[in-house]
This record gives sequence, C-alpha cells and structure tokens, in this order.
Amino acid sequence: MSKIFPLNKQQLEALCERFPTPFYLYDENAIRINAREIQKAFSLFPNFCQHFAVKALPNPAILSILHEEGFGMDCSSLPELLLAEKSGVSGEEIMFTSNNTPSEEFRKAKELGAIINLDDITHIEFLEKSLSKEAGGASPGLPAIIAFRYNPGSLKMGNGIIGNPVEAKYGFTREQIIEGYKLLVSKGLKRFGLHTMVASNELNADYHLETGKLLFEFAVEIKQKCGIELEFVNLGGGVGIPYKPDQKPIDYHYLAQELKKLYDHILVPAGLGNVAIHTEWGRVITGPYGYLVTRAIHKKEIYRNYIGLDASMADLMRPALYGAYHYISVAGKEDDPCTETYDVVGSLCENNDKFALQRQLPKIEVGEKTGDLVIIHDVGAHGRAMGFNYNGKLRCGELLLQKDGTVLQIRRPETIDDYFATLIKTE
Amino acid sequence: MSKIFPLNKQQLEALCERFPTPFYLYDENAIRINAREIQKAFSLFPNFCQHFAVKALPNPAILSILHEEGFGMDCSSLPELLLAEKSGVSGEEIMFTSNNTPSEEFRKAKELGAIINLDDITHIEFLEKSLSKEAGGASPGLPAIIAFRYNPGSLKMGNGIIGNPVEAKYGFTREQIIEGYKLLVSKGLKRFGLHTMVASNELNADYHLETGKLLFEFAVEIKQKCGIELEFVNLGGGVGIPYKPDQKPIDYHYLAQELKKLYDHILVPAGLGNVAIHTEWGRVITGPYGYLVTRAIHKKEIYRNYIGLDASMADLMRPALYGAYHYISVAGKEDDPCTETYDVVGSLCENNDKFALQRQLPKIEVGEKTGDLVIIHDVGAHGRAMGFNYNGKLRCGELLLQKDGTVLQIRRPETIDDYFATLIKTE
Repeated sequence: MSKIFPLNKQQLEALCERFPTPFYLYDENAIRINAREIQKAFSLFPNFCQHFAVKALPNPAILSILHEEGFGMDCSSLPELLLAEKSGVSGEEIMFTSNNTPSEEFRKAKELGAIINLDDITHIEFLEKSLSKEAGGASPGLPAIIAFRYNPGSLKMGNGIIGNPVEAKYGFTREQIIEGYKLLVSKGLKRFGLHTMVASNELNADYHLETGKLLFEFAVEIKQKCGIELEFVNLGGGVGIPYKPDQKPIDYHYLAQELKKLYDHILVPAGLGNVAIHTEWGRVITGPYGYLVTRAIHKKEIYRNYIGLDASMADLMRPALYGAYHYISVAGKEDDPCTETYDVVGSLCENNDKFALQRQLPKIEVGEKTGDLVIIHDVGAHGRAMGFNYNGKLRCGELLLQKDGTVLQIRRPETIDDYFATLIKTE
Repeated sequence: MSKIFPLNKQQLEALCERFPTPFYLYDENAIRINAREIQKAFSLFPNFCQHFAVKALPNPAILSILHEEGFGMDCSSLPELLLAEKSGVSGEEIMFTSNNTPSEEFRKAKELGAIINLDDITHIEFLEKSLSKEAGGASPGLPAIIAFRYNPGSLKMGNGIIGNPVEAKYGFTREQIIEGYKLLVSKGLKRFGLHTMVASNELNADYHLETGKLLFEFAVEIKQKCGIELEFVNLGGGVGIPYKPDQKPIDYHYLAQELKKLYDHILVPAGLGNVAIHTEWGRVITGPYGYLVTRAIHKKEIYRNYIGLDASMADLMRPALYGAYHYISVAGKEDDPCTETYDVVGSLCENNDKFALQRQLPKIEVGEKTGDLVIIHDVGAHGRAMGFNYNGKLRCGELLLQKDGTVLQIRRPETIDDYFATLIKTE
C-alpha cells in the first residue's frame, strides 16, 4: 500500500524553485481534519482536553492551528512555555509536565496560569520555594490546581519503546501519590489532577484502555484515601501512528467509546462522574501530515547501491537514533514498479545516517538540480524538532501547505551565521 | 581508579559564580601536552600530519591551539571548512573528507586549497563539474592532489562501533580505487593520496596497525597497477580513549614504532619510502581533556534513586545515543566512599536522558545554588558538538582553562533568542 503526498510532481518542483530542498512540509488541511475527528470522538466526555505535546512539532504556526481546533498545549520546558504563549495559548489550556525542573520554569508556568504537573513528591516543597517572593516569584503561593505524574512501577508494563516503568525516571510511586495529595489538602488546595505516561508510539488501543482503567481505579482509591475528587485524569500520550504501510491507525471512536465504558463503570458509580479526560498526544496529531522533501543528488554502487539525499540525520534523527522506519516515495514515480534496492542515505560522517536500508524503490535519477525529489513520510512529529548540528550541518526549514493551497514558510533554514552565533570572537 | 579534574572545588565554585552551570571546560595545557606526545611519537615518519577531526570539537579556539601544535584539520562540511579558515588553517593542512557531497562544498574546499578526499568514483566527474566555470568555480579544473577513501569491504572487519565495512556507505571498492587513479592519471594528475576509516573508539593498537598494513600493501599494488607513487597514506581516525577507569590508553610510541616497522618492511622496499603518514584523529586529541560541569539540583527516590543535574542530553548525547559510559566525579568528594547507587539524569522528557545508570557515587547534596558540582569526564570530543534542541532545550556554553590558569569563555550558552531565531514572524 502506498502513502499519499498532497502535491503532484509539477506542483512540488515549482515549490522547490521558491524554497530549495530539503524542507519539511506540513499539510494544514489534513491536520485540521484529524484534529476534528479526535474532538468528535472524545466529545463523549465532559470537558475533554487534548494538550498537544509541543515537543513533537514546536512551531507557533502549527500550535495556533491546533489551538483553533480546541487543543491545549503540553509543555516541558521554559522555551516550550514561551512557544505556547507566542501561539496565543495561556492559562489552564497549558499543562506543564516536566521533570528535574529548574525553579525558573515553575515561575513561568505559574505566571502563565498553566496546570503544573509535578514529577516528584519533593517538588511540592521545591515548587513552593520556587514561587516564593525570596526566589523572585511574582505571585507567591501554590497554584490553585496541581497534578501529579504517576509511575505505576510493576503494576503496568511500559511498551517496548518507553521501557519498564520501574526503570523510568518519571513520576511518583503509588504511596507517594496518596501522601502527596494529603499534603496538598493540608496546605488548603482544592483542585487536583492525575497524570501518567507509560507508552510511546503504541498502536494497540487496548494498551491505552488498560492505562485508562488503571488511572480510573486509582482515582477511586484516591477519593477513598484522601477525600478528594480529582478534577481531571490525564492519560498522557503515546498513541502511535502507522509508519509502515501495512499498519493500521488507532480508531479514535473505538478508543473513546471503550474508554467511556470504563469511565461509566468505574468513575461514575464512585461519584466521580465529573472527572475531565485529558490527553497529551503529539505524534498522532501531526506525525502523518508532515513530509521531509529532499532531492537525490548522488548515486553510489559499491557493496550495496546507495542513493544520497541532500538531507541528513541533522534534519531527521529518527532512523539513525531508533532505527525507525519511514515510508519513502519518489515524486512522479508513485506508481512505478519498485525494481531497485537502495540504501537511502544522508551526508553525515556517521554510518547510521541512513533514511532507509535495502529499500525496494523505483529507479531514482540523481543530480543537484535535476535529480528526483524524494519524500520521506510521517515526519510531522519528532522530526525537525530533534535535529542537531553535528558535522557542522545546518538544519532545514519548515513550510506550511495552507488550507487554500498556498505555501507559507514557517521556519527558515539555518544559516552559517546561526551556526557561528554562539562562538565568541576573541580578536 | 579515579580520574582527575584540573580545578579544586573552591576554584570551581568561584568559576561557577562567573559562568553558571552547566558548561564544558577544556584544559589547554593537557591538550598541548598530549598533542606534543603524538608529534614526538610520529616524528619517526617523514612528513607526518595529524589532521584533527573538526567534528569532534568544532571551536576555533581549540582548532587554533591544535594548529599551533602543528596539526592540520579534517573537515567534513562547508561550515567545518569555514571553521578551519577562521582558525587560520588553510591549503593542504586541510583534508576535506566528505560523503554525498554538495558541489558548493567542493568549490569551497578547492578555494581553500584543501586536499580533497573523494568518497566515490562518480565524484571524480562530479568534482570536475562542480569546479567548472558554469557551476561558478573560481578556479576551474581538478586540484593538483586528490585522495580516495577506500572501503576494504570484506577484507577488513570494522570494529564494533563503526560496523561492517560491507554495509558502510563510505568509500571506493578496491577495483574502483585502481580504476579511479588510472582515470586521474589520464587526466594529467600527478599527486595522489589514499585514505580509509574503518574504526571508531578502538583502543587496540594492533587493530590500527592492521589497517596500516592493509593500506601499505595496497599502496604497493597501486604503484604496480597504476604506475603512481602515493604522496600520502591517511590511516583515518578511530583511536579510542579509556572512558572507563580500568581501561588503558593507546601507547602512541608503540603504535608509531610498530607502524614504522611495517612501513620499512612494505613501503620502503617497493620504492615508496617517501610516502607521508597522515591521520585524522579526533576523540584521542581532545576527548579526555574536556569536562561537562553541572550542578545536582534534584534528588528523587522512587523505584530507584535519582540525581537530577542541570545538564541534559541536549548538552551531551553520547550516553543516551550510544549507551556510552562516562566517568563521573563530585567536586570536593573525590576521595569520599561511594556509598550510594544513583541513576544520574537530565531533565529531558526522554527516558534515555540519563548520564549514568546504577552508578556507585558518594552521597550527593542537591539544590539549585547549593547542590554539589557534578563533573562528567571525557567529553572533550563528540560532546557539545552533538547537542540538540529537543524539548526546547538550550545548549550550554564552552570554557577554556588556559595555560596561565585563567578561564576564557569560547562559546556562550544558547539563549531563547537563538532558539526562536529561525521562526518566521507571521504578524
């Protein structure tokens, strides 16, 4: 099964005249359609809020679109808080989930009115100190609402990618969660949230439902032990996307409906029928709707046959870092037979700078101006965001294919000046 | 066995008043002593040249020091060529070893008079075209000297880190090397080099000697088959460093002496007694003399005990990317008993953002201002150079501990403005 790309070859070549390859291209229309599908599926719940994981695609143009579609933001650092602010998002639409957090970041989160999600029981005291007048807090005192990140330890296996929760650095133990809420109650707090995040790129809906069940049951226990009714339960992210053509996407409606059954069965009878459902999905929100557009510039035949692109792992790390699979298509050759076997590579002096290994593809022509345009799919999340400057490589820019079909540059490519910006002139 | 750090706790705390943690600190004195040791060992050879692998530590302040010690530079991209130029290095002191190279980079390499090392047989024609007047070449025509990168395929096993040469994207096959020199001879070229690079971080001197033997024997065959006398043989890099305290560094003198025996035994009798020996070491040149200085800001006790630093994998990727071991010491507690077992972690929302797993260390105190200073060793190569901005993290700065004991900032930390620099303002 092949994957689609929103422009034909002629349109793409014209675009490359304006913006030389490589670049990321995001499809606004597809992002909005997907966002609406999620909102529709989860409208079963009172006060559903999907906080987009900013780390996945930290560009204000994208964040603004998602905010228009009713999404909040999940931020993990000061620059991400500022990105949310720049995108017109503020207050409790922002969830600040961080770990090993510097005090400055807590102060900014409080200033923005974000929901602060604490990673550790010692952070209650650290947060209070961080917000104090002595520390420079503009509005001292704990925020009105606080959430805790729960690490279920051996009660839940993480999935293959995120690893075993017992070995994860994140969150409170079960006992610490109970102790923590009691402490907050003693400090006069009245609004509470519960959060967990135990998977990454998981396509099995039942895995996410299990997480929901775990949190719902814990919410009931928390009510019994601490006498509090949680305001929200945040199931975290980790919803996967079908990187491989034979994989199937998660069915949002199935997930929402089955989750609602658990909600009705566990929370409602316990008098917790007003708990809001929050999520912090990233990959599934923008991943499939982003493309890395590159040109094939070199062909090489040694022990294997190689196609060299003008992008490298500096632009897209996932294949090198995780051995991740990304579907590749060649503009104008979508229906050609895949007669060749190539390793598709970048130009870094790292042998793992390869976008695909032994991939069956149509015959590819190379050349800096005349070579085929090669499209790497499903890079709309954790793509440009994870780039680096190793080997002196400059990271590429980002384009937005807008609703009306026009294209807007939303991030310019890095320049040599950017690369040299932090060097101190000693003469 | 413990590893040393060039400042005592008091000196380091004073330094942190001027430059807040985290930062990299490089020890000029130690870098110079090591460089001189290498030069001394390899003075056995006529025209030895060590080209420093710029990618390992791309800072002009360091490059200038190494140039003063007689090193050339090994560059792999246009920005690295510019870094060399900025550091006062030019002409054949620069070796340009790249792969899947854009034409613009070949033009700059030619303009600087660098030795161009081709990665593929098709690049002979590509280079000619790139340098042509039509392509904008300032001085058309092939350069006076050209080298080829040799991929020995199944004739040599790569080491564990770099992988099997048959699966590596680099270099010419044996047959292509012969064909390539013949082609250059037919084009009137008179000066030639041969290069390979088949290891990374290899501590076994005999492995590097084997590589030398392979290249020397090939040089003799090349003379027989192509009628040319190579001007140099470049053994590449890949010399390892003892990251773990129980490992032993390579003995430069042993390596040079044994290599000289092979040289005298293989090259000299074949009338190749003038071949220069080149290397392009990176890690072993600066690796052990760079430190990441951080402060312990959080302690966390869940299923394991964690120490949270104010640095993250955005500053140092190697542990997360390769599971690499780095020795850790605590300022002022170098001789304290290692009574604790910690995971030492950063603040990224990636569970692999951990500098050490289950490491035995002295008891560490935490606090943003009062916490212990934790030093991560052996990060003078492939450290700051591999950082990224994932999670909106800003990469830290670099300091140079100069010969006279004073400290100079040679790279400022990134700022929020740097992070936002490539975003396009749409309003």
